[in-house]
Amino acid sequence: MKKAILLVIDGLGDLPTPKTPLQAAKKPNLDRLAKEGITGMLAPVGRFIVPGSDTSHLQLLGYDPEIYYCGRGPLEALGVGIKLQEGDVAFRANFAAIQGDKITDRRAGRIDTATAAKLAKYVPKQVDGVQIIFKTSVEHRGALVLRGPGLSCCVSDTDPHALGEMGECHPLDDSPEARKTADIINRFTTFAMDALSKAPENKKRPKPANVILLRGAGHYKKLPSFHERFGFNAVCVAGGALYRGVASYLGMDVAMVLGATGDKNTDLAAKAKAAVKALGQYDFVFMHVKGCDSAGHDGDFAGKKKMIERLDKEAIPLLAKSGACLVITGDHSTPVSLKAHSGHEVPIIVYGGERKDDVKKFDELSCAKGGLGHIRGKDVMPLILNITERAEKYGT
Amino acid sequence: MKKAILLVIDGLGDLPTPKTPLQAAKKPNLDRLAKEGITGMLAPVGRFIVPGSDTSHLQLLGYDPEIYYCGRGPLEALGVGIKLQEGDVAFRANFAAIQGDKITDRRAGRIDTATAAKLAKYVPKQVDGVQIIFKTSVEHRGALVLRGPGLSCCVSDTDPHALGEMGECHPLDDSPEARKTADIINRFTTFAMDALSKAPENKKRPKPANVILLRGAGHYKKLPSFHERFGFNAVCVAGGALYRGVASYLGMDVAMVLGATGDKNTDLAAKAKAAVKALGQYDFVFMHVKGCDSAGHDGDFAGKKKMIERLDKEAIPLLAKSGACLVITGDHSTPVSLKAHSGHEVPIIVYGGERKDDVKKFDELSCAKGGLGHIRGKDVMPLILNITERAEKYGT
Repeated sequence: MKKAILLVIDGLGDLPTPKTPLQAAKKPNLDRLAKEGITGMLAPVGRFIVPGSDTSHLQLLGYDPEIYYCGRGPLEALGVGIKLQEGDVAFRANFAAIQGDKITDRRAGRIDTATAAKLAKYVPKQVDGVQIIFKTSVEHRGALVLRGPGLSCCVSDTDPHALGEMGECHPLDDSPEARKTADIINRFTTFAMDALSKAPENKKRPKPANVILLRGAGHYKKLPSFHERFGFNAVCVAGGALYRGVASYLGMDVAMVLGATGDKNTDLAAKAKAAVKALGQYDFVFMHVKGCDSAGHDGDFAGKKKMIERLDKEAIPLLAKSGACLVITGDHSTPVSLKAHSGHEVPIIVYGGERKDDVKKFDELSCAKGGLGHIRGKDVMPLILNITERAEKYGT
Repeated sequence: MKKAILLVIDGLGDLPTPKTPLQAAKKPNLDRLAKEGITGMLAPVGRFIVPGSDTSHLQLLGYDPEIYYCGRGPLEALGVGIKLQEGDVAFRANFAAIQGDKITDRRAGRIDTATAAKLAKYVPKQVDGVQIIFKTSVEHRGALVLRGPGLSCCVSDTDPHALGEMGECHPLDDSPEARKTADIINRFTTFAMDALSKAPENKKRPKPANVILLRGAGHYKKLPSFHERFGFNAVCVAGGALYRGVASYLGMDVAMVLGATGDKNTDLAAKAKAAVKALGQYDFVFMHVKGCDSAGHDGDFAGKKKMIERLDKEAIPLLAKSGACLVITGDHSTPVSLKAHSGHEVPIIVYGGERKDDVKKFDELSCAKGGLGHIRGKDVMPLILNITERAEKYGT
């Protein structure tokens, strides 16, 4: 049976200034795929709706976020490799520097990954019988999980999302579970501050990593796996924790690729090689590239254009000759001029198993004339099932 | 934050005979906006569904008529300036001439606005303890409201919608409320006929305005306001009562513009100036122009073409240089060849905050190739929120 690669280029779409990064980039390989395949425009969540990365990826992979979105915390926790259990409440976490009750640096002086990992050992492992699992990922980032009976994700962030006063965790509903969870988070935060402030690794740091800020609480719940729903044995090739987390949440395997960093220096050739190699063992590869989104958020037109050009040169030729059906799109637009996600569609190429159109370039203007027309995130998995000849007939 | 003008050209779309009025009209300004902006086709309610003006405007402004449509009566009543209360039952009303039990003129001899307003004072103010509010608008038209406990909108029209026998008001369900309301309407109709027949203003009229015909009963209910739902401080610039009524229903302010008559002689420049001036105080302007729809209903190709040309010359340049994002479309097609609403899409231009396409003209054929593709009425408010950078991200 035919296999598939879904390549999601994060934040791909843009607005013309007067060209978009895709229009400005030299990308002969992507343009060749557009010419030899079929193109269109994709609204990942709904027309003109501004997608988050988490909801968009769920939808692209066939999971309606209205039903399956569990909050960002569990996806990040899964992404850093924590094995979650039904009922766990998880948060995004990050080390920050605090002085008195004021956050003075939300990244704890841009702490390095190795030092952050060392500091994790001082963080309390339980509060009042509730188990606490904390794991760092890259630099100041990490995830934190509460495990125990009677917990709720209806609690506020302690991360103030800006410099200034540290937030207290509040219950967001009247349940005893929310009150208990907020209380545990507040006590945990105090214990962690005490322990981290005394840590020898923090002694010489002008901005010590002496507090853990939490946000994005979510309740983990098992769901029907990608394999159960679509029949694919799937693997994820991604640098960023969130994308690995989404894949884990759906029961996909996650490939470990040396050099896949989730930033602009990621080793795209290594990722493409890993994706193609994975086709020996798997029949669906979800490959994610983050750099375009980060450049969009930074307002960095040249950086976004360069990331597209690197991808075109270092990854696309390998993927194109893999023999698998290849679907290339984005999870949302991150226009350089807006430095934020937007509700503008993203272009999509389908190469293999589909008709052809007469579009010759892969960009926002050309693909708007593509043969697929305007499709939605929820159409992507049916599309992939159809072109890989795996779709079940509806009726007889 | 960016502001928006939504210009609805009523009944804009048409069928080719062999050109459509939009294709035949000289409209350099609209064509320039099509060229510099992005275009598409809009199905206001759903593909191939024939919209009413009321349901279509609700949907374009983000209110699903399946949920929020309250019948035409309350919208007309709000449009003529009656302040409705929860539970009020409202009707469209018009003066007619009756002889015996036969309607001889449904417009009471095309009665003028001033005489109609004078006659209103003879109309009963209550029947059986139910308060009656009657207000005239233009010529024979007006609205009537019943206010009191235990009323229902499940009652038939008394307007026979043709010459001939006057209708009796029947309950349309078995409820005591419907029976009571029908009874009150029938008694009101008799009292009003008596009083109007004796009115001195009617003595010399060959077709006296001696009866009030009612239709479109609806029950008024408060709904979440446009401001609550979308965050815009919005104002309506419209001549027609229905459009002002829809705006009032959603909690928008309604601008009073001298010369905005809602017919083909309306002062379009005054309306455009008012719309642009309103941007000082408001961040969303809903502007409505009626003339194209009326010409469509009359089968008047030249009149529809001329209205488009007047709009292009007298209003579009002002709106285009206002600095606000500009969305121009129709609420439905009213093809001249059909003299009625139809389910054909209407073209749409989005100017500002969006991508561009290579469409160069604003008409039904050109915009079908536009970069927006085929969108729906329910997409319009998400579109406007997106281009004005007000959309909330779904997920993180």
